[in-house]
Amino acid sequence: MATTRDTSKDGLRNKLENFVLTRFKPVWRLVQANQSLAKRVNKFLINNAIYKVPTRPHPFSTLSPYTSWDSLTDRTYSGLHLPPLNWQPLTSQDHYDINLSTPQDFEEKWPDVKDLEVLYKKTGDTKYSPKSTLIFPYFVQWFTDSFLRTDRQNQLRNTSHHHINLCTVYGLTPEVTKLLRLHQGGKLKSQMIDGEEYPPFYYDESGQRKEEFRGLLHQPTSALDPTPKSDNFPLEQRIKLFATGVEIERANVQIGYTMLNVLALREHNRLCDCLAQHYPTWDDERLFQTARNILIVEVLRIVIEEYVNHITPYHFNFITDPLAFTKEKWYRQNWMTVEFTLVYRWHSMLPETILYDGQPMAMTDTQWNNDLIIRKGLGALFEETCAQPAAQLSLFNTATSLVPVELASIRFGRRAKLRSYNDYRDLCQYPRVNQFEQISSDEAVRQQLKRLYGHVDNIELYVGLYAEDLRENSALPPLVGRLIGIDAFSQVLTNPLLAEHIFNPETFSPVGWAEIEKTTTLSQLLHRNIPTGKAAYRVSFDR
Amino acid sequence: MATTRDTSKDGLRNKLENFVLTRFKPVWRLVQANQSLAKRVNKFLINNAIYKVPTRPHPFSTLSPYTSWDSLTDRTYSGLHLPPLNWQPLTSQDHYDINLSTPQDFEEKWPDVKDLEVLYKKTGDTKYSPKSTLIFPYFVQWFTDSFLRTDRQNQLRNTSHHHINLCTVYGLTPEVTKLLRLHQGGKLKSQMIDGEEYPPFYYDESGQRKEEFRGLLHQPTSALDPTPKSDNFPLEQRIKLFATGVEIERANVQIGYTMLNVLALREHNRLCDCLAQHYPTWDDERLFQTARNILIVEVLRIVIEEYVNHITPYHFNFITDPLAFTKEKWYRQNWMTVEFTLVYRWHSMLPETILYDGQPMAMTDTQWNNDLIIRKGLGALFEETCAQPAAQLSLFNTATSLVPVELASIRFGRRAKLRSYNDYRDLCQYPRVNQFEQISSDEAVRQQLKRLYGHVDNIELYVGLYAEDLRENSALPPLVGRLIGIDAFSQVLTNPLLAEHIFNPETFSPVGWAEIEKTTTLSQLLHRNIPTGKAAYRVSFDR
Repeated sequence: MATTRDTSKDGLRNKLENFVLTRFKPVWRLVQANQSLAKRVNKFLINNAIYKVPTRPHPFSTLSPYTSWDSLTDRTYSGLHLPPLNWQPLTSQDHYDINLSTPQDFEEKWPDVKDLEVLYKKTGDTKYSPKSTLIFPYFVQWFTDSFLRTDRQNQLRNTSHHHINLCTVYGLTPEVTKLLRLHQGGKLKSQMIDGEEYPPFYYDESGQRKEEFRGLLHQPTSALDPTPKSDNFPLEQRIKLFATGVEIERANVQIGYTMLNVLALREHNRLCDCLAQHYPTWDDERLFQTARNILIVEVLRIVIEEYVNHITPYHFNFITDPLAFTKEKWYRQNWMTVEFTLVYRWHSMLPETILYDGQPMAMTDTQWNNDLIIRKGLGALFEETCAQPAAQLSLFNTATSLVPVELASIRFGRRAKLRSYNDYRDLCQYPRVNQFEQISSDEAVRQQLKRLYGHVDNIELYVGLYAEDLRENSALPPLVGRLIGIDAFSQVLTNPLLAEHIFNPETFSPVGWAEIEKTTTLSQLLHRNIPTGKAAYRVSFDR
Repeated sequence: MATTRDTSKDGLRNKLENFVLTRFKPVWRLVQANQSLAKRVNKFLINNAIYKVPTRPHPFSTLSPYTSWDSLTDRTYSGLHLPPLNWQPLTSQDHYDINLSTPQDFEEKWPDVKDLEVLYKKTGDTKYSPKSTLIFPYFVQWFTDSFLRTDRQNQLRNTSHHHINLCTVYGLTPEVTKLLRLHQGGKLKSQMIDGEEYPPFYYDESGQRKEEFRGLLHQPTSALDPTPKSDNFPLEQRIKLFATGVEIERANVQIGYTMLNVLALREHNRLCDCLAQHYPTWDDERLFQTARNILIVEVLRIVIEEYVNHITPYHFNFITDPLAFTKEKWYRQNWMTVEFTLVYRWHSMLPETILYDGQPMAMTDTQWNNDLIIRKGLGALFEETCAQPAAQLSLFNTATSLVPVELASIRFGRRAKLRSYNDYRDLCQYPRVNQFEQISSDEAVRQQLKRLYGHVDNIELYVGLYAEDLRENSALPPLVGRLIGIDAFSQVLTNPLLAEHIFNPETFSPVGWAEIEKTTTLSQLLHRNIPTGKAAYRVSFDR
């Protein structure tokens, strides 16, 4: 029941920016064609995205509702963009340039989390994204898992290195890295099946963990996770789980995540061959380290130049030009925030069923089921994934099995004492809404929010984020998009491999630099890493 | 045997800068009097000091002679300002804007370390500093020990948090911090003796470690350290060692280090009382954390406004204005370097004997001898320390007991594969010298260097640093001063407590902010923390 949305609280500047960036395609094409102009526009737009909010270091983390040496240095607690609800200011001074709502009775007005289930459950058929293929949510889950790492034993903490470091492939700790390496030619351990390369299996044929993998990570058992640890988990699936850099249950969780991890492993080992050929005197260590450097930057380029350009509705395509930002005050030590974690919970984009070999298959049957990858081969699997749509990121659209995960996210936001949706709008330079009609054009969304929260000021961040309409021609609603832009750009471009004096052919070797230069898409990565002689596959985030 | 030094390789710009900054006193006084002008000059001079060399992140650390993900992220290895001698460049590109010498046979030309002893041993009477009192080297040793923390078990690694965090007082790890806290009123454990406050003793009266301090740190035994662990160490000295945040042997090593640690503890507990009075609802944790925030910044201010202004020969006095630097590209995550460690090895400033109660006392007798502090009281001890000179930082002037430490520093530089003295001159924008006469005016220095190294290009960094003449009216030789300026300014001003959105009364409380505002000298710190009614003591770095 879509009506029209009241856009009176979208903000004039926001409307104007959006208007300019989504119109005038021929002009933008001209801008893009002029390299020096494109660089300047790239810099301006990225800065414009990041400077919407105060820059790091954040005064607050989940450690305490005041600033301490520990809260400023212990990054196992997650950062906060706004002071938590239980902060009691000592000064009248407002460091946020916004009027934070007084939170006294805010928490009392929250509905029971259980009652919020209705916002996520489907009321009819799955809504599909008009823009994105299924590889899009797969890719997002995979690459964000390397830095958005909420600690499952204490959600206020994290196990993140706060960088895209491909720890899913290389290991979260040096000990794990050691177990995954072949210690020969720089390579990661792997196996060949039907002429294609895969990570080794973690279990032997009887389902026992292989001795060589003692020390790889496991997820703590959680009521939310049906995992391969369950007693009734089939042996034939279990023995095909791959040895991986993060928790075994996590990195094998679904074929989407796993196929990307397989691809990264193949690229690493291919780069090792390539480097060994050109630098025959290098030892295993140097080959490993240099291949890792190269692969991380290849993925960073795909993130910026393929993934980000897919999520924005702009006609301008962002480019990888990290050295343009050395004098920016946002260029500070990374620190993943709770808010960044929440804007990346896109469970509703995973449809209830997908197509496999042209037949519908329940999403739950694609979990911990690597045989689906091995049987089909990586190329054909990528192509079929890119030939079907993702579901749409919105309320009333989450697969049944994932609804509990949505509710867990709400509980997480409450535990972290996050401020209201309207406070975050204000932080991000969107005017506060005062009518439900300003959030969504969907009558059902408006009615449920009104029934559950009574007043827009009471809406929680996590609920408000996904209640908003998607922006025109965008994969994301506006506040999600803005918050992602802030943390993504300001934490990707600060990767140490992209820094001045480091982002150069000396660090990656001239051979590695050339590999980086020819990598901006997943498709390129895939086609280097499938058996030769096979046809070209269509790989794209765009439908 | 001082002649004149050949200044032809001092560099025109360096000479000019020095000339302007050390002349025209009335003009500088005018500049200083105008607050807005003083801030601009302060910013210019600090940037000018830091930008002499490429900024962080450094491509190299002591981990490997090439750049890897590990070398870019594992800060337990120390940073390097220049690539190590065993680096083999892959590209012709020169990222350093200097022509590094080719190091093939450089190492072969080094003399035996044993033969270098002659450079440090005294040939006559101790030379005293015309500028600095004895509190100066004491203070330096104490405050640098909080961040220059070479790992004694592997000198290529460190145990540093890379910030001035007063870990000597608060503990190097959270576990140690816990043991040192009273867990009441935010305070650190302490004891009163003769009406003055001290840290608690670590041992009981029989010389056994107190149970409550199980878990405090100890230094690994080293041939270089005669420590209280020795069998013949007197019980009456042993039982007066204080419980401290870093290794017990280290923080009790000499009365200079210990008296400053005592003073810091007193200030912390005083701040707790002060905060508790104004914020009666605060719990122990908040009082502790806020007092720590305040004390760290008080010490940072003393470092910038008293200590730095003492070491520079300029007429302009630096001020604490950290928010001026948010857009500087040197404002990057801290990472202590090997070179920074070596330019802070000022052992020759400690005289063979000091005056205590007006009588000469061997420096070695002031080691692990806290009774000297307790017997005299902190105020009188500070005054007597400031009434006598430090020795002069130069060759041929190291106390006999510390000569082995000088030789260990040379071995350390070799192990870290540091480049030559001339390479570092070039890095720091001093022209390379080509004559021994350009380094020192001291005939003995010239002759020994010539005999030992044959050619100026062979001189090692550590030797060259201290072979240079002191700059006029400065406590330091020029290359030491320059390297210190670079790392000190760029790593002090990046302290998270000095960051935008954090360096404000909200973080420290209005009461704490006022305490910070009235702290720029050691003297102020002392006079708040001695029994009332005592006379004012003279406390100064200046003779």
